[in-house]
Amino acid sequence: MANNSDYAFQKCINPECAATFDVAEILVKCPTCGDMLDVAYDWDKMDVPGSLKDFEKRWTRTNPLDFSGVWRFRDLLNFCPDDCKVTVGEGQTILQRNDALAKDLGIDAGCLHLEYEGLNPSGSFKDNGMTAAFSHARLVGATASACASTGNTSASMALYAHSTGMSCTVFIGSGRIAYGKLSQAMDYGAHTLQIAGDFDDCMRQVQAVCAQLGIYLVNSLNPFRLEGQKTIMFRILEQLGWQVPDWIIVPGGNLGNSSSFGKAFAELKQLGLIDRVPRLAIINAEGANTLTHLYNDRNLRWNDGRPDADLVQEFYDDLTARKYSPRTVASAIEISRPVNLTKCLRALDICDGVVISVPDEEIIDAKAQIGLRGLGCEPASAATIAGLKHLLADGVVDPSAKIACVLTGHPLKDPNLTVNYHKDNKGKFSNPPVEVPNDLNAIIKAMKQA
Amino acid sequence: MANNSDYAFQKCINPECAATFDVAEILVKCPTCGDMLDVAYDWDKMDVPGSLKDFEKRWTRTNPLDFSGVWRFRDLLNFCPDDCKVTVGEGQTILQRNDALAKDLGIDAGCLHLEYEGLNPSGSFKDNGMTAAFSHARLVGATASACASTGNTSASMALYAHSTGMSCTVFIGSGRIAYGKLSQAMDYGAHTLQIAGDFDDCMRQVQAVCAQLGIYLVNSLNPFRLEGQKTIMFRILEQLGWQVPDWIIVPGGNLGNSSSFGKAFAELKQLGLIDRVPRLAIINAEGANTLTHLYNDRNLRWNDGRPDADLVQEFYDDLTARKYSPRTVASAIEISRPVNLTKCLRALDICDGVVISVPDEEIIDAKAQIGLRGLGCEPASAATIAGLKHLLADGVVDPSAKIACVLTGHPLKDPNLTVNYHKDNKGKFSNPPVEVPNDLNAIIKAMKQA
Repeated sequence: MANNSDYAFQKCINPECAATFDVAEILVKCPTCGDMLDVAYDWDKMDVPGSLKDFEKRWTRTNPLDFSGVWRFRDLLNFCPDDCKVTVGEGQTILQRNDALAKDLGIDAGCLHLEYEGLNPSGSFKDNGMTAAFSHARLVGATASACASTGNTSASMALYAHSTGMSCTVFIGSGRIAYGKLSQAMDYGAHTLQIAGDFDDCMRQVQAVCAQLGIYLVNSLNPFRLEGQKTIMFRILEQLGWQVPDWIIVPGGNLGNSSSFGKAFAELKQLGLIDRVPRLAIINAEGANTLTHLYNDRNLRWNDGRPDADLVQEFYDDLTARKYSPRTVASAIEISRPVNLTKCLRALDICDGVVISVPDEEIIDAKAQIGLRGLGCEPASAATIAGLKHLLADGVVDPSAKIACVLTGHPLKDPNLTVNYHKDNKGKFSNPPVEVPNDLNAIIKAMKQA
Repeated sequence: MANNSDYAFQKCINPECAATFDVAEILVKCPTCGDMLDVAYDWDKMDVPGSLKDFEKRWTRTNPLDFSGVWRFRDLLNFCPDDCKVTVGEGQTILQRNDALAKDLGIDAGCLHLEYEGLNPSGSFKDNGMTAAFSHARLVGATASACASTGNTSASMALYAHSTGMSCTVFIGSGRIAYGKLSQAMDYGAHTLQIAGDFDDCMRQVQAVCAQLGIYLVNSLNPFRLEGQKTIMFRILEQLGWQVPDWIIVPGGNLGNSSSFGKAFAELKQLGLIDRVPRLAIINAEGANTLTHLYNDRNLRWNDGRPDADLVQEFYDDLTARKYSPRTVASAIEISRPVNLTKCLRALDICDGVVISVPDEEIIDAKAQIGLRGLGCEPASAATIAGLKHLLADGVVDPSAKIACVLTGHPLKDPNLTVNYHKDNKGKFSNPPVEVPNDLNAIIKAMKQA
């Protein structure tokens, strides 16, 4: 299949290097300087709509690419021809205006919106990126894929792998294995290799195996995944009638979402499709707060593409020396060495961003509130609302600001936490079962007390 | 709020009674003869589209009722004014053409389609009916709701209750409680009463409590729920370009889906919107096969609205005498006294239906195949594919027939079954993890053996 290399290419994010490479090459890092890569476009050669409203013409159900919440916006991530593009119906997500939760938080009615990504086919936002990565995999002719995740990434990879007729392998360590998290990967047909080692061993081995066997590595460095994730922002704009909100709030783990959101808004602004960018708030869990530490306490910045690499290395060396492992109930953001750190610094620069951390107790309380008021979410997603409470209290976010929080995953991704929270009365919003005799009057009394 | 009672009403399904009642009354059974009730319409007084294609005008995202996969078809279930209608974005479901699974089953390419209802907000098809029931609850001014389910129904009820500002209570017995299944109901804020008794006690008490306290009972007899479930069929037609398939295949538990599907096609035919109805295949689990027994072995039929009630009673008496409990891995259809039996007989009559039962081993193998080829599903949903294999082998369904299978729920509704199936190598399609030393050559060897 022909690629779109007359206007799409891979480009080093380091402005002093800025080397470009063909979009059909499989690269993990810039071969020239070792920095990260972007997918970049020569917009002048592309047929980009003159207004975001033009995308409304795609609201049909007859073409699968138009039905996809990712590929409906394909003009803005057009790195491969349409016959390469894979879709399983991802991105049919909902931006829910939630006045009940807004009221709880002291936010004006009509101002709080929750972008619920749990409605994706594999149950998390990962499908937005994976549909793009597997389209790229087809462009380069890959027949096999692999990754070292045991969570949402492996589920999404396995779904897209079998949907494109590719094989896929999940590398897991021999330590504590959460089989529940692997249930989707096994269900969708991933081969699972349990390596006698830890996660770092898996990560190292999967990269070596992919390089040696020519397997397509679906890791978070993959710039094509971030292209797909841009569409989460396009859908928020779409559902707000193409109005730009004041704040985007997102959990911070590997920082792929924040990175792609910044890129999305920078491109839309450059294309004249929006007249301003929203501010970005990234919420870490306290038990995995690398970004908070480096950005707030050590003043690490994008610095026009030259962030202080020594500062980062020094911090990571210290983590190694202390044998530090991140620990939070929000397992999807339990990461202390975020691979997209540099791109995220750029996003914070583009969006005049802020970063804060929240403790686990506040995350699980916020999760319960999101369940009680909305569609629910996995624990990591609730960091958004936990963080928003602080940003409101500190006067960073105004109660009359238009806010969109990104809820990254389905509540059924981690039902045990939900059950324990309620059953064992663990938090402010716990809702345990009440035992009642099998007697009508006793039951009516219990109903009235509820 | 005004109701639509100039053209919508409740009507006894017994043609000899055919009594009608206001749509705004809360009735469980016909007050005249005790039979079940339908929601019926005087179509001549309604503004029904002249062609199903007219519904395509609704493919926008600006009006929440148009975005809903249920209310987009509101002209065909218009029992309440629009300002009563509740939506949380239900029915954004996918009809997946699945040629890979078709090939496994020996079905012609392009002929097999899977209607995946797991993408509903609460993760199952129940949202289609619950959005309609809660719209009715608002029409009648209810402020509280209740049900006796511990599964998909309670999750869906709790979501719609909090979304409409109503309270809700789940009645559960004190026997074996699957907290995982209750996780969503607790998360969405349901009050949970654990009655010292069994499920039958709960069912009896919830009805008594609802009658005494004026609480809206969300049980399967509710005819408004079935109105919402009709739209699963409308969406299948929509995604097939308004072509009627040859077969609809659906799991059979309480028989609400089959009942509503039959009603949907009868109404579309009556309105001249389709020129033929598809055939209907209802698949029981062998461990909960009341319909199979009564329909195939005892020849129970709709009989123009006069099914043999004595035959049914005799069978239920025998179940009672034997202290029979249904038992299947497909917990969502583990029901031996289906409340919608009579309406289902009507649907089988309308759609020239067939009924068969399949053993649990075949259900879990079929579930694994659906995961391997599609988006996955909960165990009960897989009865469709398990049943289809028999219908093909027996020559009932032709391999060139256009088939739509209804997958009722999300795979994450029951991840433990998935994990055990694969990890413990329990079936034909088991895909257990492989242990490998932390050594590149050993890993590459394992990759090549996969």
